[in-house]
Amino acid sequence: MSEPAKDRRLALRDRLVLIAECRIADQGLAALRARDLAAEAGCAVGAIYNVFGDLTDLVLAVNARTFARLGAAAAAALREAPADPEEQLVAMARAYHIFAATNNLSWRALLEVVRPTEQAAPDWYLSDMEELIALIDGPVSSIFPTLPPEDRVVLTRTLCSAVHGVVLLSLAEVSAGIPRERADPMIDLLVRSLIRGLPR
Amino acid sequence: MSEPAKDRRLALRDRLVLIAECRIADQGLAALRARDLAAEAGCAVGAIYNVFGDLTDLVLAVNARTFARLGAAAAAALREAPADPEEQLVAMARAYHIFAATNNLSWRALLEVVRPTEQAAPDWYLSDMEELIALIDGPVSSIFPTLPPEDRVVLTRTLCSAVHGVVLLSLAEVSAGIPRERADPMIDLLVRSLIRGLPR
Repeated sequence: MSEPAKDRRLALRDRLVLIAECRIADQGLAALRARDLAAEAGCAVGAIYNVFGDLTDLVLAVNARTFARLGAAAAAALREAPADPEEQLVAMARAYHIFAATNNLSWRALLEVVRPTEQAAPDWYLSDMEELIALIDGPVSSIFPTLPPEDRVVLTRTLCSAVHGVVLLSLAEVSAGIPRERADPMIDLLVRSLIRGLPR
Repeated sequence: MSEPAKDRRLALRDRLVLIAECRIADQGLAALRARDLAAEAGCAVGAIYNVFGDLTDLVLAVNARTFARLGAAAAAALREAPADPEEQLVAMARAYHIFAATNNLSWRALLEVVRPTEQAAPDWYLSDMEELIALIDGPVSSIFPTLPPEDRVVLTRTLCSAVHGVVLLSLAEVSAGIPRERADPMIDLLVRSLIRGLPR
């Protein structure tokens, strides 16, 4: 491919990701249509599939950006939290709740992408996830310094999953969820009780 | 409406719910199409909308049955568990995991139905949910006998949400989730640690 053709292709890629990002944020993943994207980008529908293998690849590119913003929000919460590992974990869990509430449809798209079960997650996803997990692993290591690393990983992921469940059902407004205004105190209680109740 | 017409309508309703139930269980909610349902039921597409206001109503009828099966699974786990409230909660959480794993697409459909946010959940849903919550409330009340009822409700729902999060991310096989074979021990750890760490 010639350099100008490569540049045009990259420019179209960026533009499509931006358009898809806005559409997902405004209307959710289910509203994403190749035809609408092409119309807004001023390209043919086929041009989308020249740049992305399929719409799922495009959504994964959007999700990468959402994930990066989520990681930045967690890192900011960690920086601003008191120098106490329990407080740091609570601050990150609260930041997760705020992120999920204020970026609701983009956040939901993170989990809504359907991948064939035999297909592994893309490398960037695993590496972004590792970075996010590493932020949480710091305070967890301080609290449980003698826990073997493999147990710590599982503990960290269980903590994340439990917080995710409370945030998800709270925001989904299904009646199993807790009332929105009580979500933050309950996230606090969940994180603190779990930490205190775990065997050391 | 004449009695025979009413009977035919009820029979078609039952048949449509059963067909939709099987389709959702096999292929998931996203694969549900009015045209396919009508073809399998041997009726016109319009006849579906004479019986159900829209496909969402039909899915809610399927979800009601899924919910009833979930409630029965939790109740069976509770009956078979030792007479210790912590063991009872662990047994129900494990039963939830098994139900979600073995009825995966039907279980996912419980959360995938999109309702306009201003619209309340249907009465049957709230009442089935109350029954499920009541099963969990028993052991929670035994463990925290002096907790005011309004705090107990929030605690019970937080416990459910946290277990749901672990099961969801574990089964979704996203890398934030915990490896499937470690899900049950972690569900145990989550439930037991949370209970032990909570202030009494």
